[in-house]
Amino acid sequence: MFSFAVLATQGHARRGRLTLNRGTVETPVFMPVGTYGSVKGVMPSSLEAMGVEIILGNTFHLWLRPGLDVLRRFGGLHRFEGWPRPLLTDSGGFQVWSLGANAKVSEEGVAFASPVNGDKLLLTPELSMQIQRVLDSDIAMQFDECTAYQVEGRVAGEDEVCRSMQMSLRWAKRSRDEFIRLENPNALFGIVQGGMFEVLREESIAALARLDLPGYAIGGVSVGEPKAEMQRIVAHTPHRLPAAKPRYLMGVGTPEDLLEGIAAGVDMFDCVMPTRNARNGHLFTRFGDLRIRNARYKEDEAPPDPSCACPTCARFSRAYLHHLDRCGEMLAPMLASLHNLHFYVDVMRQVRAALAEGRFDAFAAQFSADRQRGL
Amino acid sequence: MFSFAVLATQGHARRGRLTLNRGTVETPVFMPVGTYGSVKGVMPSSLEAMGVEIILGNTFHLWLRPGLDVLRRFGGLHRFEGWPRPLLTDSGGFQVWSLGANAKVSEEGVAFASPVNGDKLLLTPELSMQIQRVLDSDIAMQFDECTAYQVEGRVAGEDEVCRSMQMSLRWAKRSRDEFIRLENPNALFGIVQGGMFEVLREESIAALARLDLPGYAIGGVSVGEPKAEMQRIVAHTPHRLPAAKPRYLMGVGTPEDLLEGIAAGVDMFDCVMPTRNARNGHLFTRFGDLRIRNARYKEDEAPPDPSCACPTCARFSRAYLHHLDRCGEMLAPMLASLHNLHFYVDVMRQVRAALAEGRFDAFAAQFSADRQRGL
Repeated sequence: MFSFAVLATQGHARRGRLTLNRGTVETPVFMPVGTYGSVKGVMPSSLEAMGVEIILGNTFHLWLRPGLDVLRRFGGLHRFEGWPRPLLTDSGGFQVWSLGANAKVSEEGVAFASPVNGDKLLLTPELSMQIQRVLDSDIAMQFDECTAYQVEGRVAGEDEVCRSMQMSLRWAKRSRDEFIRLENPNALFGIVQGGMFEVLREESIAALARLDLPGYAIGGVSVGEPKAEMQRIVAHTPHRLPAAKPRYLMGVGTPEDLLEGIAAGVDMFDCVMPTRNARNGHLFTRFGDLRIRNARYKEDEAPPDPSCACPTCARFSRAYLHHLDRCGEMLAPMLASLHNLHFYVDVMRQVRAALAEGRFDAFAAQFSADRQRGL
Repeated sequence: MFSFAVLATQGHARRGRLTLNRGTVETPVFMPVGTYGSVKGVMPSSLEAMGVEIILGNTFHLWLRPGLDVLRRFGGLHRFEGWPRPLLTDSGGFQVWSLGANAKVSEEGVAFASPVNGDKLLLTPELSMQIQRVLDSDIAMQFDECTAYQVEGRVAGEDEVCRSMQMSLRWAKRSRDEFIRLENPNALFGIVQGGMFEVLREESIAALARLDLPGYAIGGVSVGEPKAEMQRIVAHTPHRLPAAKPRYLMGVGTPEDLLEGIAAGVDMFDCVMPTRNARNGHLFTRFGDLRIRNARYKEDEAPPDPSCACPTCARFSRAYLHHLDRCGEMLAPMLASLHNLHFYVDVMRQVRAALAEGRFDAFAAQFSADRQRGL
């Protein structure tokens, strides 16, 4: 079962609904990242309580640990990690790319040494599909080559980016063929590459559209390029993807990035930022970001975000979070992660309401003004 | 407000009810330890959900961080840490004792260098009472000298232990006088010392009883002595304390230790064991202890404790916890701490039911047999 309905539009922005094997996902949606089968520092029950409808898992990491034998025994990732709602898994392409010089890319796939035990491994489009078949994620991603922004210290040229993008297209076909051969009952998304070159992005879109996949992602952004470059591609690419299919902007980003993506026609986002920043004492709030380690919060009785309804803000003060962080107490990242995820999820809830009521532009303007106001 | 009612007895064991300024505590009770104002890795809401009625705070730690200015601003520890139910604070005596050679004990108090910033500090009975007045804990503990089991590599002799115990008695009077002078509206407990000498324990009890404090604790056990020594004192001392007052065995211990303490007349316990062991992958279960790091659990689909109703056992497998622990995921200590605390709290709930129904001995025998059976 897979369907996507666009319920309302405003400019390029869309309010939609994704129906997957394990449930429904209201879009635009932010998907928390559970790399190793756990959204770091947050109970699955807390994710459910805040209204999270879909989370991510990382194929590369789960392949290495706990490994396919364990995941097969549990019939997939859902039961293993105790998450009955929809799951999306990436393909491992981004992770092997992140290994840098330790990975060797060829037409066949990516060869690398396991960061866990040093084993020599080769990840191919076919193997990525086989792993994702075991994971049984509701949405699987094609294996792609994440095109680097810089190569050997200089910005990658159009020829290099084009060659990389075209290999990702060939890997998309191989992914699709293997996905079908494996009789995977879930949905496979393609990934648009093309770096910072609009013409290559359009070529990638055209070729992927011919594969008629259930959804499409935009990869190769937020990979070290200047912010303005990312914004140029995010403004250019999403609305050129097939209108009837969900559009997923991978690995992005700040709350502002999300609003820009939505305005450009994106339906789905994932990012480690809410949880990673939380662990570093960086809390997102309606009126700007809050660095809880700052000494100014030592005696501050206010909740992190007075306008927030999350369990952290309902019960705890900035002074308490500051103290927990200073003492290295585990509760500090737990409470901050809970708050940041709630903030992201709640912004998306507000966006969906605004889109449904035809006031997205006004909402986005107010959101931006509020965030810039400062605490 | 302070009262204690013994609702049922069986041998020395008692089923009781403690009424404090912030609520009622059913005894026998296990009190989770929140050293820095947080039970490590566990949300206060989770503690409430599992039925925890009282938690501990450590005067010594909270005095150093966040310090009295912050705690005063919040009107005490309850509001600062978001815990509206009863709180007990220790006196700092055990913590300064733990500093060992870095602390110098005199009649006045204990001089030491702050482990946080090196400041020279002197903790006295009066200062401990002043700090605990700011913390506004429902139960404050007298400042005592925790008598060491060993001095300079040999077991402390009766003369040394006697001198230490008698200083604790003088500190009990000074604590009581300062507690009254400060008009503290809460309850002050005395602490029995006397090391491994029954005669000294009895002398300590007799002198403390003359102070007519609302409750009494047994200190100076679980301080490095052999298990049989601790068991001898735990069997000897509690039931000699005033029968109408609650009895608190400090810093103890394993589930088996708790059952032995209850049989000897103890009403209250605290220990870091459930949370500390959880962080080391050691889970308590009905049929013995489970070391989740053991490779035998890699593919084990069973919950940690199939007989347990906690949120961890309701949703997750041993294989998943094994995996989280191996990957260093924060969710591993979170889920294990939740389970271990639930186990302790639930054992006490079962003990109270058994005492109310006059079947404590049978319960204790079955509990012991189950625990020894193994998983």
